[in-house]
Amino acid sequence: MNTPTTQRLRTIWLNEAHTIQVIDQRHLPHQMLVRDLTTTAEVVEAIKSMTVRGAPLIGATAALGLYLAAQEAAKAPDPEVYFATQVEALRQSRPTAVNLFWAIDRQLKGLQGLTAWADKATQLLQGALAIIEEDVEICRRIGAYGLPLLESIAKQKPQGQPVNILTHCNAGFLGCIEWGTATSPIYQAHQQGMPVHVWVDETRPRNQGANLTAWELSQAGVPHTLVVDNTGGHLMQHGLVDLAIVGTDRTTRQGDVANKIGTYLKALAAFDNQIPFYVALPSTSIDWNIRDGIREIPIEERNQDEVKWVQGWDGQQLTQVLITPSTTKAANFGFDVTPARLISGLITERGICQANEEAMLTLFPEMR
Amino acid sequence: MNTPTTQRLRTIWLNEAHTIQVIDQRHLPHQMLVRDLTTTAEVVEAIKSMTVRGAPLIGATAALGLYLAAQEAAKAPDPEVYFATQVEALRQSRPTAVNLFWAIDRQLKGLQGLTAWADKATQLLQGALAIIEEDVEICRRIGAYGLPLLESIAKQKPQGQPVNILTHCNAGFLGCIEWGTATSPIYQAHQQGMPVHVWVDETRPRNQGANLTAWELSQAGVPHTLVVDNTGGHLMQHGLVDLAIVGTDRTTRQGDVANKIGTYLKALAAFDNQIPFYVALPSTSIDWNIRDGIREIPIEERNQDEVKWVQGWDGQQLTQVLITPSTTKAANFGFDVTPARLISGLITERGICQANEEAMLTLFPEMR
Repeated sequence: MNTPTTQRLRTIWLNEAHTIQVIDQRHLPHQMLVRDLTTTAEVVEAIKSMTVRGAPLIGATAALGLYLAAQEAAKAPDPEVYFATQVEALRQSRPTAVNLFWAIDRQLKGLQGLTAWADKATQLLQGALAIIEEDVEICRRIGAYGLPLLESIAKQKPQGQPVNILTHCNAGFLGCIEWGTATSPIYQAHQQGMPVHVWVDETRPRNQGANLTAWELSQAGVPHTLVVDNTGGHLMQHGLVDLAIVGTDRTTRQGDVANKIGTYLKALAAFDNQIPFYVALPSTSIDWNIRDGIREIPIEERNQDEVKWVQGWDGQQLTQVLITPSTTKAANFGFDVTPARLISGLITERGICQANEEAMLTLFPEMR
Repeated sequence: MNTPTTQRLRTIWLNEAHTIQVIDQRHLPHQMLVRDLTTTAEVVEAIKSMTVRGAPLIGATAALGLYLAAQEAAKAPDPEVYFATQVEALRQSRPTAVNLFWAIDRQLKGLQGLTAWADKATQLLQGALAIIEEDVEICRRIGAYGLPLLESIAKQKPQGQPVNILTHCNAGFLGCIEWGTATSPIYQAHQQGMPVHVWVDETRPRNQGANLTAWELSQAGVPHTLVVDNTGGHLMQHGLVDLAIVGTDRTTRQGDVANKIGTYLKALAAFDNQIPFYVALPSTSIDWNIRDGIREIPIEERNQDEVKWVQGWDGQQLTQVLITPSTTKAANFGFDVTPARLISGLITERGICQANEEAMLTLFPEMR
């Protein structure tokens, strides 16, 4: 597992003293604070408070939390009760996070046949490290499969002209462990010396593009320009975007893609201007039980204050400002659904396929 | 000319003491401050500082500024030189505002044959009031022609269900004198007792929707909900928008529409979901000399700090917060162009026409 002293920054790691450390994402991009997680309670709090966020990272953090819980249980008066209580606290930390439950269940399954708490702790540590390295490998492979898309565009450009990629929200390493999904082909291209430039959608209302994607691209030295979410259509009309790549929270069996609100508008603009529009995803985010994304995917409605108040740095501290009459109501839909017909392809850890059931089943025949 | 004591709020008026007063729009929506403009210098400063904004309002304010300039000139050592200097100062106050030059030129033309400064002042006051009342009448007529669109939707709805209109930016009375353009059919429907509800696009980066449109709808008691600019596509997919109406800064002879950045994305979503998308405009904003909006309309690039910093109310004062790494660059395109093929119709002061040259020339045969 990487530590901050190795080359590529990760979102979670064990330091030399074997302490779990994470980037405290609540302060990004204004402050880069690393936080120690030394107890299960601290892990629960870190997930609840969104110190860590992003489905794979939440799962990985909870998996390491169970390792701490087993160590604590060994010293508790009733280890079984203590451990069960901590498992429940972890489960409750982000009740809608599918990866959280998946990681916890996988970890608990790994304990079968073990009785000594020291053995359980060892197993849980190994299990967590495996979850982490698997996520890194999935993201690396998404990047490797996506890279040729960028290479073929680069070949058609005059020497030194960057490939311009537009992305929405944060599907970067900050939501995962390393590489990210939509960003992985970009990082791999940049690492190989290909000139790339990323148009970063601000991504209102929570500004994950402005806060997180811009920050992680800065850290990696990838040239990028922040734009408000309204801008993508104009850029595409004027030939300033070669390719769009976004992430997804949930993709249906027929290739409809739920992603951060506003993704659909960019897909429409890409389609209207004949610009390739790709979605990068680990296959675990495909929901094989549903087809019609617009009808079947429930869209989370969040607190209106995320729209009415904007958080930023006032020069001295993080602060929030109201941008509308205090009496004005706001609606805050978290996601929208982009119909498969607007999507050029899905970039998965097994390769690229078209966004339709037959093509997806060719890559994932076990889902037939 | 209305004063604030009459029923409908205006953006500029003369009070009982014959002092020019304006709403200081820089403090909206957080404070409603009325400012006196008692000298030409104050008028120039009000336009420069965006105390008043919006093409028709800028023109009207400058027209009244000339009235003050003539009064001041009468008392100056060299009235001619003084007046010419003030005219130039007004011209320079917002160098890209076409209505500003138009209003000044029209006012100066009205002075032909007059020599006494008192007569000139009287003429300039009458000329300014005429400009103001003409704008009010144009906006009123746009509303009258747009109203049947809303009525026909209302008829198809169950009793009491509101007509849902989406709008982008501020094409409301705050940029004009009264009624506004895109808002005029909405205000007239509301005034008649038709249930209406407006989805207000926040309109990043300057947040004119959140700041201005939400405020003026609140003042008029029109039900509305603020949404981030990313939301319109989702709303349209789910049948939550019956009609979109926006304004325009410049429309070409073939009906391509330049409007606030992001308008094109909403037009794409409306087209994809078969929702009517209308543009409300005074015919003065039609540029009969150009056809292809995407190729021929230059798009203003504004300061990146408008994207990187967000202004709002921190509970005590207006303040600005940084929402991205300080080193991140931002691009800030002010407008985009919506191709005529995506537009259901243009609502003008002479009636509604399709967005194509033949239909437009039928309404405006003098432009053949």
